[in-house]
Amino acid sequence: MNKLVLLTLAGALANAAPALAQATEKLDAAALGKIRDEGMNRSQVMQTAFYLTDVNGPRLANSDGLKRANEWTKAQLAKYGLVNANIEAWGDFGRGWDIEKSYVAMTAPYYHALVGIPKAWTPSTPGPVRKQVVVMKAATEADLAKYKGQLRDKIVVMSVATPPKPATEGAIRRLSDEDLKKMAEPAATAARPAPDAAMLASRKAMAALRTAMADMLVSEGAAGVLSTRGGIYGTFNTSNGAPYAADAKPVLPEIETAPEDQLRIIRLVEAGVPVEVEMETKTRFQTQDLKGYNVVAEIPGTDKKLKSEVVMLGGHLDSWHAATGATDNAAGCAVMMEAVRILKATGLKPRRTIRIALWGEEEEGLHGSRGYVKNHFADPATMQLKPEHEKLAAYFNLDNGAGKIRGIYAQGNEAAAGIFQQWLAPFADLGASTVTLRNTGSTDHIAFDAVGLPGFQFIQDGLDYFPTTHHTNQDTYDRLIADDLKQASVVVASFVYDAAMRDQKLPRKPLPAPAKAQ
Amino acid sequence: MNKLVLLTLAGALANAAPALAQATEKLDAAALGKIRDEGMNRSQVMQTAFYLTDVNGPRLANSDGLKRANEWTKAQLAKYGLVNANIEAWGDFGRGWDIEKSYVAMTAPYYHALVGIPKAWTPSTPGPVRKQVVVMKAATEADLAKYKGQLRDKIVVMSVATPPKPATEGAIRRLSDEDLKKMAEPAATAARPAPDAAMLASRKAMAALRTAMADMLVSEGAAGVLSTRGGIYGTFNTSNGAPYAADAKPVLPEIETAPEDQLRIIRLVEAGVPVEVEMETKTRFQTQDLKGYNVVAEIPGTDKKLKSEVVMLGGHLDSWHAATGATDNAAGCAVMMEAVRILKATGLKPRRTIRIALWGEEEEGLHGSRGYVKNHFADPATMQLKPEHEKLAAYFNLDNGAGKIRGIYAQGNEAAAGIFQQWLAPFADLGASTVTLRNTGSTDHIAFDAVGLPGFQFIQDGLDYFPTTHHTNQDTYDRLIADDLKQASVVVASFVYDAAMRDQKLPRKPLPAPAKAQ
Repeated sequence: MNKLVLLTLAGALANAAPALAQATEKLDAAALGKIRDEGMNRSQVMQTAFYLTDVNGPRLANSDGLKRANEWTKAQLAKYGLVNANIEAWGDFGRGWDIEKSYVAMTAPYYHALVGIPKAWTPSTPGPVRKQVVVMKAATEADLAKYKGQLRDKIVVMSVATPPKPATEGAIRRLSDEDLKKMAEPAATAARPAPDAAMLASRKAMAALRTAMADMLVSEGAAGVLSTRGGIYGTFNTSNGAPYAADAKPVLPEIETAPEDQLRIIRLVEAGVPVEVEMETKTRFQTQDLKGYNVVAEIPGTDKKLKSEVVMLGGHLDSWHAATGATDNAAGCAVMMEAVRILKATGLKPRRTIRIALWGEEEEGLHGSRGYVKNHFADPATMQLKPEHEKLAAYFNLDNGAGKIRGIYAQGNEAAAGIFQQWLAPFADLGASTVTLRNTGSTDHIAFDAVGLPGFQFIQDGLDYFPTTHHTNQDTYDRLIADDLKQASVVVASFVYDAAMRDQKLPRKPLPAPAKAQ
Repeated sequence: MNKLVLLTLAGALANAAPALAQATEKLDAAALGKIRDEGMNRSQVMQTAFYLTDVNGPRLANSDGLKRANEWTKAQLAKYGLVNANIEAWGDFGRGWDIEKSYVAMTAPYYHALVGIPKAWTPSTPGPVRKQVVVMKAATEADLAKYKGQLRDKIVVMSVATPPKPATEGAIRRLSDEDLKKMAEPAATAARPAPDAAMLASRKAMAALRTAMADMLVSEGAAGVLSTRGGIYGTFNTSNGAPYAADAKPVLPEIETAPEDQLRIIRLVEAGVPVEVEMETKTRFQTQDLKGYNVVAEIPGTDKKLKSEVVMLGGHLDSWHAATGATDNAAGCAVMMEAVRILKATGLKPRRTIRIALWGEEEEGLHGSRGYVKNHFADPATMQLKPEHEKLAAYFNLDNGAGKIRGIYAQGNEAAAGIFQQWLAPFADLGASTVTLRNTGSTDHIAFDAVGLPGFQFIQDGLDYFPTTHHTNQDTYDRLIADDLKQASVVVASFVYDAAMRDQKLPRKPLPAPAKAQ
C-alpha cells in the first residue's frame, strides 16, 4: 500500500446504504463450491508467498529482487496454465538500486552495533567510514545556518520526530462487528475538505527545508547521515527513498535506523559525551533499463460474445527494501495468483477473459497501474477513451495487509454495492459480508477509478499491518497466516468468477472530467 | 533479574493474611513528607539511569561496561555524601569479555543484513567469514550423528525452538486491582512440587546434548554458528552465554539473531535454495582480573546503640550485553541510588547505618550478593553465622523491571508482613499498598533469605518487562518511565528510613538448616 494517500476517504454520498431490493444476481452455487473446495483444501497460497518473499527477496522498484519476482511470477502463472503471460513495460521509472553491504555501529564511547539499513537510492560510502557525530535539529531553513562549517567529515545524526511510545495494545487487530457495522452505514461525513492554504504552505516549506538540508549536507562535506522515521522495540520504518530519477542530484550515504539507537546517540551528544559512528554501505545503481514493468497473464474467456471483455484482478508486486514486503504486498499478489490457480484447477469455464496484473512501482505513486491504465484504457488528464475502456468488466485489488477479507469498498458505486452484497452472501460463514459505499485509496484500484472504470479494493482485517509491518523492517513471511490467505483467495476467485459470468459488466459511475481541466 | 529461578513461588503457608491487629508502628510523618517532596519534586533518578545505561553502556559480568559503571556509581555515591564508598571483591568470577565488532548478513541468494549480536563469551571470527549454511536440527545425541562430515567450513544455523507468534496483547502491562487482590490472599497453593525424576532426567539429557553439540561443532571444524532464543518484531533474546571460566573449553564464534532472520534462512535451505552467510565478530577476553565486584557505600547511623546495625538496600548493576540493561536492572540501581540521595538531601538522621549495595554478576547466578552474604553474614552450606549476621536489620531489593512499586513480597515472614502493611499505608495514593506473603525468587534478596536474614523484593508493575525487554536487545533507556521510577524511589527511601528508625530490627524467620546437610 502506498502511503501518499493513505486515508480512507468517506465518500460524499447523500443517501442510504445500497438497497437489497435490486435485481437478483444469478450465482452458480456448484461453481462456488468447487472454488471453495480447491482454495480451502488444496491451497498453494503459502508456498507462493514463500517464493515471493523469502526466495525473491525485497522487491524495491526496479531492483534485482523485483526483476526476479517478475520472472518467477510470469513463469508460475504460465505453469498454472494461464496464457499471454508477459512482463509488460508501463513506461519510464528511474534507476534500479540494490544493497550489497550494510553495516553501522557506534564505536565510541563504547561499541554498539546499530540496527539500520541504507535509505533507498542512496550511494555507497567509500569503504568503512568512522567519524565523529554531529546531531542536527532544524525546524526551519534559518536553523540550518547554525551548522555551517560544523559538518565537514562528520556523520550527521538527524533529530527524532517521533520517539517510541510503549505499546499498550497488541500488534494484531481484527475488525470487530462494531467496526464493520459502522462501515456499512451510509457515510455520515462528507468528503474530506481540501487542505487549506496554511497547510499547503507548511507542506511546501517542509519540502523546501528537506531539499535545502540535503544540499547543505553535500556542500558542507558531511560524510554520511543517520536518520529515522520511527518505530519501536526493533521495528523501524524504512520508506521514502532518495530521488531515483536518472538525473537526480547527488545525496549522501544515509542509513535509516531504529529510533532507540539514534536516540541513544542524541542523548549522549547532548550530555557532552563525544560519539563516534562507523558506517559502511555498498549500494549498486542500475541505469541500463530505466523502465518499469507489470506482470500480466490471462485465462481466456469461453463465451463468443463476452470473451473480448475482461475481468481484471491484481495487486502490487514491488515492496520496500528492509524486509521482504510480505504484508505489503506479497500477500495480495499470492492471493491473486492463488485465485487464478484455483480457477484453472477447478476447470471452470469463465465467459469473459480473466486477466491478472501484478503491478510494479506502486510504492512510489501507483506508477505501474497508472501507466497500464493510461496505455490501455484512458489518460485521466484528457479522458480520451481507448477501445479497451468499454471492454473492462471490473478490476479487483488486494493490498491492505495480509488479513482475511471482511467485505468490499464499493467506492461510491451504489449499483455495484447491491451486486456485491449478493456476491458476499455465500461467505458470511467466512467472515466476509460487509459492503461499504466508502472510498478507500492508497492503492492500485484508484488508477482504474480515476478514469471511470469499476475498480475495487476489499476490506481486510488489519492484523499487525499498522504500525508494525507496513513499510518496516519487520514485513516478513512470518507475519502471514495461512487461514487468512486461503479465505481471501476463495473470496477473490469467487468474485472474479461471478464478474466473468454475469450477463452485464459491472455498472459504472459517471465518467470523471479530464483531470487537466479540473 | 536472573532467569534460572524465575518462578514466583507460592509460599507454603497454612494460615491467613497477616493480621493488622499487631503492634502499631511508629511512623514519622514529617520525615516521610520530606522524602516524598525531595523524590517527587527534585528527582535525579532519570539522570542516574541515563548514566547507568547510555553512558556506561552494556554491563555484562566482568566487562569493561560493568567496570565503568562500578567506578561511576562509587564516585556518584560519594558525591551524594555517602561514606565508605567501595568497589568490593566478592570472590572469583571468570573472564571479562567485550564486543569490538559485530556483523552478520545473508549474502546469497541475495543480500540481507541480519539482526544479531555475538553470544556472550564466544570468540572472534578470523576476520570476515563467508560460508555456505547447514541447518542443524537435533533433538537427541543420536541425531547429531547425521551431521558427521557435513559441517567442515560451514556456518551452522540452529533450528528455532520458538517461532514468533503474532502479539495480540500490548507490551505494556500493569497489575490490576484483581491481580493485587489475589496476591494479598493467603496462598492457596502449597510450594511447587519438586521436579520429578523424569523431568530431571530430561534436563540432564538436554544439557548433555548441548555439550555434545558444542564439542561436535568444534571437532568437525564448523566456521561459526547462528542461534536464536526467540523474540518477535525485531526484539530478540540474548542471554545464556558460553562458559566464562578461565579454563573453559573452546567454542565456536556464535551470533544470536532475531528468529525471523534465522527462520528465513531455514525455510530457504529446506526448500533447496543454497544460502551463504557472512559473519564477522571481534570479541576481546580479559583474564588479568577474574574477580567479581560489588559497589557499596553507607550513610552512617546516628544512634549510639543502633548505628552498628545496618539496613541494606540494593539491586544488581550487571546486565546482559545486547542492550543497556535499562529495566534489568539499571532501573533498580537508579532507584536505590536515588533513595540514598533523597535520604542525604533531606538531612534526616537515620538511627541505624544505611548501606547500599550494587551487585555484580547477578545474571550468572546471584554471584555478587551470594558472595557478599557469604563473606559478611554466613555461608548457607554451613550456616556458621558471622558477627555481622545479627547486625542486619533488613535488606530491600529492586529488580523486577522498571515499573512502579505496588507493594512487597513478605517472603513468608508473617511478622514482617504486618509491619509492611503499616509502612505502606502512606503510599496508597501512589498505588503501593499490597503485602503478599508469597515468595519471589530470581534475584538478590534470595542470597539473604537463604541464610535466615530478612531480605525482601518489592512488587512492581511489569510494564514491558516480559516478554519484551527482559534479557533482550530492547532493554534500553527508552523503556524507563520517570513517574514510575520517582514513585519507587520515594517508597524505597521511606521503607529504608522506617527500618533505620524502628526500635527493633525487622523480625526474622527461623534460621534454615545448613544447605549441605539438606
